[in-house]
Amino acid sequence: MAGKKALIVYAHQEPKSMNGSYKAVAVEELSKQGCSVTVSDLYEMQFEPRSTRKDIIGELYNPEQLNYGVEAFEAYKNGCLSEDLKEEHRKVIEAELVIFQFPLYWYSMPAILKGWMDRVLVQGFAFNIPKGSGSGLLKNKKALLSFTTGGNQAMYTKEGISGDISYVLWPMQFGILQFCGFDVLAPQICFAPEYAPLEERRQMLTSWEKRLKTIWEEKPIPCILE
Amino acid sequence: MAGKKALIVYAHQEPKSMNGSYKAVAVEELSKQGCSVTVSDLYEMQFEPRSTRKDIIGELYNPEQLNYGVEAFEAYKNGCLSEDLKEEHRKVIEAELVIFQFPLYWYSMPAILKGWMDRVLVQGFAFNIPKGSGSGLLKNKKALLSFTTGGNQAMYTKEGISGDISYVLWPMQFGILQFCGFDVLAPQICFAPEYAPLEERRQMLTSWEKRLKTIWEEKPIPCILE
Repeated sequence: MAGKKALIVYAHQEPKSMNGSYKAVAVEELSKQGCSVTVSDLYEMQFEPRSTRKDIIGELYNPEQLNYGVEAFEAYKNGCLSEDLKEEHRKVIEAELVIFQFPLYWYSMPAILKGWMDRVLVQGFAFNIPKGSGSGLLKNKKALLSFTTGGNQAMYTKEGISGDISYVLWPMQFGILQFCGFDVLAPQICFAPEYAPLEERRQMLTSWEKRLKTIWEEKPIPCILE
Repeated sequence: MAGKKALIVYAHQEPKSMNGSYKAVAVEELSKQGCSVTVSDLYEMQFEPRSTRKDIIGELYNPEQLNYGVEAFEAYKNGCLSEDLKEEHRKVIEAELVIFQFPLYWYSMPAILKGWMDRVLVQGFAFNIPKGSGSGLLKNKKALLSFTTGGNQAMYTKEGISGDISYVLWPMQFGILQFCGFDVLAPQICFAPEYAPLEERRQMLTSWEKRLKTIWEEKPIPCILE
């Protein structure tokens, strides 16, 4: 939709991968709609995943004992977070839609993306305490997990050997996105692209492209365990 | 138990933290038993969480398109993984008990520890394909998640605002540890130490110390959703 702003937080090492193609399709389709699209290409940026003392510029609130959560909260309030975090904050603030594009690693996101969550979504910026379902600060923003899996769809069912996909989604969708106030859109899951024939892979991308055409009209889903 | 070998994979920035104390108690108690204890202190080691090209020494199996899983598998078989990964492999091979000590970040482990999972537990070393419940290679080893939370125990129930703790455990215990063949021991969960009075914090540590005295006799738990 013309004038809308989207951010794609992208975590894959290889542009020629299926994840790279999903990202490219999203950039192209959203741009075609007249949206302004920003990409945080985490590997390309060599994004730092580790939460450390370096994230706080200058003196610590409590130099005697490093409590990362407390220090990040104080640093956020005082404008003393490191520049890479401020930059990600600016991108998130601007965005009306955030797409996380990644391969599923160990039933979750790759460490580089988990580090984005750990370091960018700090108290004061993304949520406040007392924690609770109403404590998210990133309101009126849509968020969507788009990822590839190793296993096929049948494996990610209650009867499958990997367990239901809703169990995998829950910590990320309920635990992070909804908690931070995002309107969570249905995930875009690309099952087992490595084992799919070329034509099927093309269809997966076409289906993503098609979905993006009406993405702005989508309503949030409930983030529950099924 | 005298002669046994334990590995503690520890992910906290601050030795004076509750996590630091849990780690110290484990080192002390297990050493007292005559066990040999190794610690991978991830922040101290500046452990690299990102899965990149640098993890493979020399030529890639497919230089045209980087598929990390494939490359890590090939590199493992050919002894071409980077030295930091080989070192962690040696520690895991030796260990009969692996304790993961960390603060819960966003319903999961901190990125630095997720990176340990992503990079150390590669195909060929930790599991093989066809994937399945019988595909784990790290047999006859006990593993245990020991972590602190921000929220209290009542919050991590089906009726609580954070949802049942078993939902949080599932991707880590079922998805990673059991999949790799570990005998998963009951998690050691230290709820909301930040808000606990000193005496209560002491009791938490004493209870951990007491548990460790008979840890070698413990039987694995089923990794299921409750």
